[in-house]
Amino acid sequence: MKPYNTMSKEELTKEKEALTSEFNAHKAKGLKLNMARGKPGDDQLALSMPMMDILNSKSNLYSEGNIDCRNYGELTGIPEAKRLFADYMGVAIDEIMIVGSTSLTFMYDCIARAMLTGVLGSERPWVKEEKVKFLCPVPGYDRHFAICQFLGIEMINIPTSSTGPDMDMIENLVSSDPLIKGIWVVPKFSNPLGITYSDNTIKRLASLKPAAKDFRVFSDNAYAMHIVYKDVPLLSMMDAFKESGNANMLYLFGSTNKVTFPGAGIAFMAAAKENIAFKEKQLSMHAIGYDKLNMLRHVRFLKDVPGIKAQMQKHADLLRPKFDAVINKLEAELTGLGAGTWVKPDGGYFITFMAEKGCAKKIIALCKDAGVSMTNAGATHPYGNDPDDSFIRIAPSFPSLEELKTAMEVFCTSAKLVSAEHYLSC
Amino acid sequence: MKPYNTMSKEELTKEKEALTSEFNAHKAKGLKLNMARGKPGDDQLALSMPMMDILNSKSNLYSEGNIDCRNYGELTGIPEAKRLFADYMGVAIDEIMIVGSTSLTFMYDCIARAMLTGVLGSERPWVKEEKVKFLCPVPGYDRHFAICQFLGIEMINIPTSSTGPDMDMIENLVSSDPLIKGIWVVPKFSNPLGITYSDNTIKRLASLKPAAKDFRVFSDNAYAMHIVYKDVPLLSMMDAFKESGNANMLYLFGSTNKVTFPGAGIAFMAAAKENIAFKEKQLSMHAIGYDKLNMLRHVRFLKDVPGIKAQMQKHADLLRPKFDAVINKLEAELTGLGAGTWVKPDGGYFITFMAEKGCAKKIIALCKDAGVSMTNAGATHPYGNDPDDSFIRIAPSFPSLEELKTAMEVFCTSAKLVSAEHYLSC
Repeated sequence: MKPYNTMSKEELTKEKEALTSEFNAHKAKGLKLNMARGKPGDDQLALSMPMMDILNSKSNLYSEGNIDCRNYGELTGIPEAKRLFADYMGVAIDEIMIVGSTSLTFMYDCIARAMLTGVLGSERPWVKEEKVKFLCPVPGYDRHFAICQFLGIEMINIPTSSTGPDMDMIENLVSSDPLIKGIWVVPKFSNPLGITYSDNTIKRLASLKPAAKDFRVFSDNAYAMHIVYKDVPLLSMMDAFKESGNANMLYLFGSTNKVTFPGAGIAFMAAAKENIAFKEKQLSMHAIGYDKLNMLRHVRFLKDVPGIKAQMQKHADLLRPKFDAVINKLEAELTGLGAGTWVKPDGGYFITFMAEKGCAKKIIALCKDAGVSMTNAGATHPYGNDPDDSFIRIAPSFPSLEELKTAMEVFCTSAKLVSAEHYLSC
Repeated sequence: MKPYNTMSKEELTKEKEALTSEFNAHKAKGLKLNMARGKPGDDQLALSMPMMDILNSKSNLYSEGNIDCRNYGELTGIPEAKRLFADYMGVAIDEIMIVGSTSLTFMYDCIARAMLTGVLGSERPWVKEEKVKFLCPVPGYDRHFAICQFLGIEMINIPTSSTGPDMDMIENLVSSDPLIKGIWVVPKFSNPLGITYSDNTIKRLASLKPAAKDFRVFSDNAYAMHIVYKDVPLLSMMDAFKESGNANMLYLFGSTNKVTFPGAGIAFMAAAKENIAFKEKQLSMHAIGYDKLNMLRHVRFLKDVPGIKAQMQKHADLLRPKFDAVINKLEAELTGLGAGTWVKPDGGYFITFMAEKGCAKKIIALCKDAGVSMTNAGATHPYGNDPDDSFIRIAPSFPSLEELKTAMEVFCTSAKLVSAEHYLSC
């Protein structure tokens, strides 16, 4: 088919009519499908069912160092959990703490604590500053942005390319504005683009010279080993920050929520030894310790990093056909049509679709109208405001393959219909 | 024996010498005993071992309403957990949310959120006030006070009698000072006194007319069913606050940490429907949900409130001999001696010892010197400062009965020795 931007009004009108009846046919089916969240599918959850048998009343419930996992204590986690997830995050055992079941909640908690009391090296609590600003590479993760918005932190969009966020812009901003206290990054298989930061990007992040002495890089390594097609090595952030003499500038977060069970996993924070010691002291004011039985269950199930990699390979085998289904449908229906482009990721949980400018909201509204839930347009940007109204995050993991194929038919029809209307009105 | 305050210098000197050699004999044993924290004993943990077999890979892991407990979702918890713990806390199912594994962390989180964004009805975040103050009934729980101190909240001591904190003082302060935003209470089997607030105290708390429109009662109902000797009914706080038209003024917290496994339990917050809805909206900014598998495990194990009561009766049967050992030793060694008094509680986790003025720190230092760890003197008061240096919290749950008896010998010798010295120097 001819690209929409080369079609005559008549051709576009005809196309629009055809697409409208196609859309109405979808709508008539009364679908109820969901491509909104990065939620693992039932087949992925089944991979961790053996973990349910790891601990029982006959098990030894003591961890290394003779710690009774059924009782209070061990604020930073049991040794074997710290060792496993330190290996997973590429840090030393005294550079990690286990922090409950969800890393997002702990990220919020870190920023809330920074607001109220400051981080290691702060001259004052962040709330005592005239204003606090964060840099937000876009497209990014809506819940990171929600945390900043909730806490009244001003967010600044940073465009992202295939090598990572615009480092020139970041360097300029960070070195000149002492109110910029942090940056969100998802360095590997980023949410939603699926890109992995280049070595150069990591080195430049590690070498930042912030005007704010208590600036922090909030690195959400949610997809550390979450390949779909192939692994892309990420330079060790901790090593890079240490080499630059900026070790204390880095906070790393991760969890097993997409390794084992979402919501019932193990979350952790990695940082330089001094940061961890400082955090432990802060936490001791309001926490006694996190669920050690679940730590033990996880370590005995996953065993070691090769164990995690083997588990992630099984996840990849289940995710790949779903990613294929999305990519293949987009390629078959939209290639060269001028109705949007997309990024095929190597890993992570999402496929990013870039609609024609001003078309994303309309596409998502049409999908919803036909019973297909998508992440809101704008969710990829701070304040829910994508200035181009272009980015759409497709989450293929939760629906079954059949549901996904149907949902993608609705999506492609919607994208074409909105684009045809867009060019008609140009 | 004669009371110390009636002894002559000679008699006291002789007594001191005898006690010093008694103390040195204890010290020579090289003991390592701990009466510091309210940590359940191994025998109590064993009561919950059947819970380890409740879920396995063959179990139905869906909750009521067909919610997959292995996946994301249900920010406020699964329905059966909300129902069970609503019953336990004496509230309705839409007046509760399940909030992870430890209530202390969530109490901190509530206050931190109030500081940063306010509570329902706040005109501004609490950090925007000139200052924030909390009322702290004393003796009280050190970790409540640590949260306030960490957040820079000024604490005001409120004396406590057998019916609860001094309500005249509370009414006067709360109605006149708009910077007083909260009060900590442990209304049942309080930490450490073990008293239960009278109906009148609860009614007066419920009828407060705070100058601060966003004042909150932080009620830590940690020991709701934690009898040792006998149950003492607590008036329903939620009902009382509703009757006074102050439903939104009440936050209730609780957990199963001393019902099942400390650190691996279920924590919850109860409050009026509007408060819960407001909190849920706030939480949705930075949380996706808490461990639903652990909720399911707990509900299927505990079943219902009679199930919890039966479990707590078993705990009581194990705790009672330990409380008896402490009380009996105190009665045998110290009755009428002028070397301190004590409170025999009906339930909870502690026995409170009131040393002669200015003697608590010295007693605890001596105990430590002889290998017996106690909660720090002053821990029962804000800023770790007991103005009378009198209160000592004895936690009898963790040591074995034999260890406890030995520890109490050391304690009584220390209390007598410090008291004899005290009267010698008078």
